[in-house]
Amino acid sequence: MTIAPKPFSWPVRVYYEDTDAGGVVYYANYLKFFERARSEWLRALKAGQQNLLEEHRLMFVVTGVDIEYRAPARLDDALTVNVQIDKIGRASMQFAQEVRRGTSLLVSGKVRVACVHCDSLRPAPIPEYLAQLFRGGG
Amino acid sequence: MTIAPKPFSWPVRVYYEDTDAGGVVYYANYLKFFERARSEWLRALKAGQQNLLEEHRLMFVVTGVDIEYRAPARLDDALTVNVQIDKIGRASMQFAQEVRRGTSLLVSGKVRVACVHCDSLRPAPIPEYLAQLFRGGG
Amino acid sequence: MTIAPKPFSWPVRVYYEDTDAGGVVYYANYLKFFERARSEWLRALKAGQQNLLEEHRLMFVVTGVDIEYRAPARLDDALTVNVQIDKIGRASMQFAQEVRRGTSLLVSGKVRVACVHCDSLRPAPIPEYLAQLFRGGG
Amino acid sequence: MTIAPKPFSWPVRVYYEDTDAGGVVYYANYLKFFERARSEWLRALKAGQQNLLEEHRLMFVVTGVDIEYRAPARLDDALTVNVQIDKIGRASMQFAQEVRRGTSLLVSGKVRVACVHCDSLRPAPIPEYLAQLFRGGG
Repeated sequence: MTIAPKPFSWPVRVYYEDTDAGGVVYYANYLKFFERARSEWLRALKAGQQNLLEEHRLMFVVTGVDIEYRAPARLDDALTVNVQIDKIGRASMQFAQEVRRGTSLLVSGKVRVACVHCDSLRPAPIPEYLAQLFRGGG
Repeated sequence: MTIAPKPFSWPVRVYYEDTDAGGVVYYANYLKFFERARSEWLRALKAGQQNLLEEHRLMFVVTGVDIEYRAPARLDDALTVNVQIDKIGRASMQFAQEVRRGTSLLVSGKVRVACVHCDSLRPAPIPEYLAQLFRGGG
Repeated sequence: MTIAPKPFSWPVRVYYEDTDAGGVVYYANYLKFFERARSEWLRALKAGQQNLLEEHRLMFVVTGVDIEYRAPARLDDALTVNVQIDKIGRASMQFAQEVRRGTSLLVSGKVRVACVHCDSLRPAPIPEYLAQLFRGGG
Repeated sequence: MTIAPKPFSWPVRVYYEDTDAGGVVYYANYLKFFERARSEWLRALKAGQQNLLEEHRLMFVVTGVDIEYRAPARLDDALTVNVQIDKIGRASMQFAQEVRRGTSLLVSGKVRVACVHCDSLRPAPIPEYLAQLFRGGG
């Protein structure tokens, strides 16, 4: 099911830890920024991952990413990371994510996640209360 | 131009630094593994990145990745990271990469890189001696 | 010269990227948290590192750390990172830093930094305007 | 008990992931290099951490580090990381570690670790078979 956009934004500051000898943010680190924003989006929905883990023995694991690196971020940059649900299925979802500096789009991507049991790592249905929250009906 | 496959493999061991609280390798860290293998592939061709940077003021930057995460790697796993050129253009290339544990395919992906001037970060033609090396004609 | 305490605090949230397969924050990552707090302390003093780099060709490099890990931080924890100048010399300083969860002290440490030219990496006097700021006289 | 030196060395190559915008290896990353060498030292003794975790429910956690950063490592550097036991107690040990490039000492440090139950994170005696191995009598 494709759902109506409800974008969520999270600020990220660039520190030395994020950069590399090319003077820019290291390409893998945008995936960290993406996940911080997804985590904070879950938290904003009162659906924290530690809770999900402890109460339901569930977690979301990333099954795929498609990323476009358009322009580099640099030390001290104040970035905005956007999260938006693209699609939501029974046991999986796809997010559209962006990293922007002001209005400039630096990095964009699709992130596919699956809901899995934390012990077996096998797919599990997204709990209905979460799916409702995600659809904005919570 | 699509070129004949010349796969290159690099071993990677999984340490605590690579894992997360889910007990598996953190999803961004496979991009580090991919880059280690690309770096060693360049080194094996006698085309080290520090050299490229100092002598030609050039570097390769990643412009896009498409990654599929199929199965998780865990602490102490001995992995193999494969690199293969998919396509090579005037100022860009695409790699097909894999992370395997034994014969099991854990992660696969496409990585697109552009050759850029290290100061301006603008596209620059891949030096002919490199392109020849990459095509296996060096 | 030993100076009067002017502690500075910075909040840090624990994400998957920070944790390891032991279920806790990976020991090296507290050094990232420490540096985020030092960077924000500099920024709060209007002494951003990018500026320091571009205008004075100077940067601070860490010359030593002594860290005590007392209790672990975990996924989703809301931490506070404290910075305080212990000592300030002509071309070096020592910070006392802490990571706390609420009032619990998790990690404490001393961090010694030197002011260096960014090209030569040789020691350089801390610019007087900075030293004054650091002493609280700015 | 202070024990006779049995140094162990492990090679580490510097990749982009290890460096920062200062053009050198980021200070926290030497702790990763230190741990890789300790992990490989354990493995060389046939005392892998995954085994220790699964069979004994034990793990080693770092309780403190004292590090001196003497000279920077850079992209493409081939480093050697040394591990040596300084002291071994009932439930804790101290290592002396170094990072060298050729004969140049770049980073040196003491790393204190405690043996803990992986669930409670409470101190546990180092299994006697391990202590013997560590003392070189295995």
